Amino acid sequence: MMKQVLIGILCGAAVLTAGILIGHYGIAKGNGSEPLDIVHGPFRLQTVNYPKHYRIKPFFILIHLHRELTKVPHLATTAGDEQTVQLMLKRWQDPETGLDQAWREEYMVYLSFPDPKKPNKVTVGESLEHQNKSYTSDQDDPEVVQPYAAFSPAGQPKGKLVYANQGKPSDYQKLNETVDLRGTIAITRYGGAGRAAKAINAAPYGVIGVLVYTDPSDINDGLMSDSNETYPHSWYMPPSGVERGSFSTNYGDMLTPYLAAKEETYRIPVENITGIPPIPIQPIGFEDAYKLICDVKLDIFNHEELKNSSNVMGVIRGSVEPDRYVIYGNHRDSWVHGAIDPSSGTSVMLELTRVLGMMVKQGKWRPRRSIIFGSWGAEEFGLIGSAEYTEQYFTKLSERTVAYINVDIAVFANATLRASGMPSLQNVIFKAAKQVYAPGLDSTSVYDNWIRYANRTSSTHGTIPKVGYLSGAGSDYAAFVHYLGITSMDISYTYDKSKTNARIYPAYHTAYDTFDYASKFIDPGFVSHQAIARTAGNVLIRLADSLVLPLNCSDYAETLEDYLNTAVTLYQPKLQLPIIVLSFFISRHVIWASSSAGQPTFPGLADAYASAESSGHSSAWAKVHYHLSVLSQAIEGAAHTLVDVI
Amino acid sequence: MMKQVLIGILCGAAVLTAGILIGHYGIAKGNGSEPLDIVHGPFRLQTVNYPKHYRIKPFFILIHLHRELTKVPHLATTAGDEQTVQLMLKRWQDPETGLDQAWREEYMVYLSFPDPKKPNKVTVGESLEHQNKSYTSDQDDPEVVQPYAAFSPAGQPKGKLVYANQGKPSDYQKLNETVDLRGTIAITRYGGAGRAAKAINAAPYGVIGVLVYTDPSDINDGLMSDSNETYPHSWYMPPSGVERGSFSTNYGDMLTPYLAAKEETYRIPVENITGIPPIPIQPIGFEDAYKLICDVKLDIFNHEELKNSSNVMGVIRGSVEPDRYVIYGNHRDSWVHGAIDPSSGTSVMLELTRVLGMMVKQGKWRPRRSIIFGSWGAEEFGLIGSAEYTEQYFTKLSERTVAYINVDIAVFANATLRASGMPSLQNVIFKAAKQVYAPGLDSTSVYDNWIRYANRTSSTHGTIPKVGYLSGAGSDYAAFVHYLGITSMDISYTYDKSKTNARIYPAYHTAYDTFDYASKFIDPGFVSHQAIARTAGNVLIRLADSLVLPLNCSDYAETLEDYLNTAVTLYQPKLQLPIIVLSFFISRHVIWASSSAGQPTFPGLADAYASAESSGHSSAWAKVHYHLSVLSQAIEGAAHTLVDVI
Repeated sequence: MMKQVLIGILCGAAVLTAGILIGHYGIAKGNGSEPLDIVHGPFRLQTVNYPKHYRIKPFFILIHLHRELTKVPHLATTAGDEQTVQLMLKRWQDPETGLDQAWREEYMVYLSFPDPKKPNKVTVGESLEHQNKSYTSDQDDPEVVQPYAAFSPAGQPKGKLVYANQGKPSDYQKLNETVDLRGTIAITRYGGAGRAAKAINAAPYGVIGVLVYTDPSDINDGLMSDSNETYPHSWYMPPSGVERGSFSTNYGDMLTPYLAAKEETYRIPVENITGIPPIPIQPIGFEDAYKLICDVKLDIFNHEELKNSSNVMGVIRGSVEPDRYVIYGNHRDSWVHGAIDPSSGTSVMLELTRVLGMMVKQGKWRPRRSIIFGSWGAEEFGLIGSAEYTEQYFTKLSERTVAYINVDIAVFANATLRASGMPSLQNVIFKAAKQVYAPGLDSTSVYDNWIRYANRTSSTHGTIPKVGYLSGAGSDYAAFVHYLGITSMDISYTYDKSKTNARIYPAYHTAYDTFDYASKFIDPGFVSHQAIARTAGNVLIRLADSLVLPLNCSDYAETLEDYLNTAVTLYQPKLQLPIIVLSFFISRHVIWASSSAGQPTFPGLADAYASAESSGHSSAWAKVHYHLSVLSQAIEGAAHTLVDVI
Repeated sequence: MMKQVLIGILCGAAVLTAGILIGHYGIAKGNGSEPLDIVHGPFRLQTVNYPKHYRIKPFFILIHLHRELTKVPHLATTAGDEQTVQLMLKRWQDPETGLDQAWREEYMVYLSFPDPKKPNKVTVGESLEHQNKSYTSDQDDPEVVQPYAAFSPAGQPKGKLVYANQGKPSDYQKLNETVDLRGTIAITRYGGAGRAAKAINAAPYGVIGVLVYTDPSDINDGLMSDSNETYPHSWYMPPSGVERGSFSTNYGDMLTPYLAAKEETYRIPVENITGIPPIPIQPIGFEDAYKLICDVKLDIFNHEELKNSSNVMGVIRGSVEPDRYVIYGNHRDSWVHGAIDPSSGTSVMLELTRVLGMMVKQGKWRPRRSIIFGSWGAEEFGLIGSAEYTEQYFTKLSERTVAYINVDIAVFANATLRASGMPSLQNVIFKAAKQVYAPGLDSTSVYDNWIRYANRTSSTHGTIPKVGYLSGAGSDYAAFVHYLGITSMDISYTYDKSKTNARIYPAYHTAYDTFDYASKFIDPGFVSHQAIARTAGNVLIRLADSLVLPLNCSDYAETLEDYLNTAVTLYQPKLQLPIIVLSFFISRHVIWASSSAGQPTFPGLADAYASAESSGHSSAWAKVHYHLSVLSQAIEGAAHTLVDVI
């Protein structure tokens, strides 16, 4: 409907305009035939009207002129440019073939040039210098301007290289979600965004410099070799070719917008110029770009083998309840020397067994329950020794084991105790920690020291040290917790998190995890090793020797309530979480499964939710649904056990 | 409410459990006091109960044991591992300090090792080899296992390096929106995702190999130098340190899940193993990572200068309407030799002026209207010469100029004509193109050749060659179109787009854009140059010499209607585009402004919309609103001109 109106208006306007034009220009001659010179003139199908010499070698002069024009580089305002000015004037003022009039118009304009004495450089290890490889003498002309981005500011930024596609706003925006762009140099390819835009778009993200190259897939139909593919063998750009250009968004002289740039013209302050790169930018050839966007080759020769791996097992038999086990474990294998991982824990275990063994051998002591010591093999390859052990003795262990104590890395650093475990063990650990001096502090207990570094407010106990959850699969407790469902703990001495952001002790799994390293930097004097040996030994004796097992169920209940609150807070708004009844008898698999989501709530649910949120796949949301079902059915089943008699 | 129920159940369960435990274990002895060995035993505050030598040098033995354990690398199942097995057995079987019993449990498990004879390599230019630099003799031990990712498949992938943050699913997903990950090697840092996950997450995107390094900011509080910061000067990881590890998602022996890996145990087929890297992955030190994630330095020494830039102007005065101008322009300056950009167009212009000038000088011909030739300076720096010219002569030019013909690059390649311009010029171009032979084809016109390469269906004319829009600012037509609002066109000979994906001719703006290149690969014999000279000359004479200006307004109307349709289709659903009345008199600035959105519709609106869609910023959507207002007010204003008398 609107279109009809539109077309009507347009047609009316067209007719009106035609009328005006005819009236204004057409009346004088009055006839509509084409002037003769179009029909028979020089720019028709035939060249019959051309002068004789011209007919013989049509447009020979054009080639000659082209050769003249391209003899030297003629960058604006250079001597080469002036040569072409003179050529134009000579031709247009020629008495036989010139125009009625020809002249020069001069403007004083704001341009940007590289410094011939200080060539722009891109350095990575060594400078990249393969620009303008010579195939003809043209490239050897000293007037060939070095590759540069006109109007790029000077500067010497240095930073990590990040590939930013075409430097579009969306490229930087998306990239910044993966990579912190602050302080980086972005390498971009031509296309998609204007030259200046590649730098203008980058700057708000903290990028400090930009490179731009011409991708062979955008310009060369993918061809790259100058030995037989690119110029001088074809029209394709050679590897060292660099596309220069003006890196400005606007056109015309920048200092005199909307005014002719005559010498006396008012010029705006340079700092008011807009639309130019705020950070240095430089064009490079794809040869150099490909050195930067490193083409990396991996030669990986790993192989798999079936090998015999050993656990070493040791036992102190219980005096009263020999068929109740407290298991204490540490893995023995390491990636290299393993001074911290695991030998800190192995030496602690050997010291414990030495002291306890001596008392047993001397007849001075024997624990109420049996103590099993496990020196696990091949932990580093995936908790293999402990997992195989639990698989082999599954029934016996799950029926008879009271608790599992894991001391893998005994000492990460010497600031404070760190403990993770089932909440029911919390009180045992606290009691033990109160009976041991903190390393280097003769009047402060491990407990009093610990509470300064990590504490929380318990609804039952007030302020207490914070015991972590064993929700990962970071050491040999995993099979005991997730497979056997045994109450477990893991303790170590560790660092002051306010003093370092280290993810773990820095020599972890490297060839520097040596006795030298451990004794000089991790625990000089091995005082923290002592503290861990005493604390772990104290816990071990409490568990193996107490009349009543010191497991506190109400602490467990407090944690489960926290889990429920967290799940409701995090997931109910999105999932319409069904109202579920929790119980103490909920399957431990559901509560203590391995988790990577980092949320203190039901791990299976938390992991599935995190994965679904990240991927958005419907199959991932289906898994959330599955975990909700597992959770609610486990809980409902447990509730029936409590409520119904039959 | 649910919480109260929960807590009730939990407390009940806790009391019940405590009762059960007491009943089961506690009855035999019946008293709740702590066993003596906790109060006075070895793991208390004081070490009073320790043997004499032990009290003097507390835990001296622990240090000794630690030294023993860490003397040699003890990777699982190696000779070093067996040494520690023997150590454990000797200690635990010691008659004086050993346990009741100690033994070895063996499992035959599936492990992964590097090949000592073919070390894993990462190559970029040269191999990276600075791994495990020696600070103590420990690193020189031939048993130090080379850095590798246990359970990484062997393989030798080669590809471009892409930084993929922590290798999380979201990292690869977001990255893949910016970078095509197929065939790449991803470099990741430790953390955020499990070791194996970094490769497992990568594979679906076509990544063929993964590197993982320990970032100094994650492990070393940013410290990097081993001359005074890292080990051996502190606990921090030295630059060549490499974190080894098991790259598996599950734990326990992979071939015997839920079964102990005894020699005779059933093993699943190797190909059924899940949770290991599907593509090769290798850990490296940050020293090598930083070589790969190139720390690039730019040294940019550009400077700005005020320089004199010249246009060269020439005129053939009109015989009947000397105050009506047809302007023909080409820029003269180039980045280097500029054989194609712009000398192809300059030589064409010089040939045209030579032929026309000769006829004028011989008194054979003079055009009806004046022809102005412009040889623009400093186009490459931002269309400066043409822009300054239009600024200087704004009033005269906008009042008197009939049309502007731009021939910048005359010949990109020799396949077909390419023309862009106001729709009103379409018919002039068609007429000219019908009167010139296509280069190398003596019986086919430029028009007939052109229509094979680029055509469209017009509601008025049927199938015709496709004339492009002058919506960018790619050459000197910009100031005439966007600033003066003059009917303009740009023509050239160009390539067959079905034969190449080149964004532009490959030597564009490089030092290889030379006479040699042009005459060998772009236009041997300069036949396409001739065709452009004839076609452009024919158009020029039609515009300068026709009795009635051959501008076709109905072609203009057809295009505007297409614009409206496009705008409605693209934007109305989202913007509730107001119903607007278009008219022929709409400001040309609004219709022909510079655009980068690539949509054949009102450029200001299209660009603003594209930018708003990309950024999502409210300020960007405000700009869309602004452009809608400009558009509707311009159109309404024009409509009033047509409709209202006063």
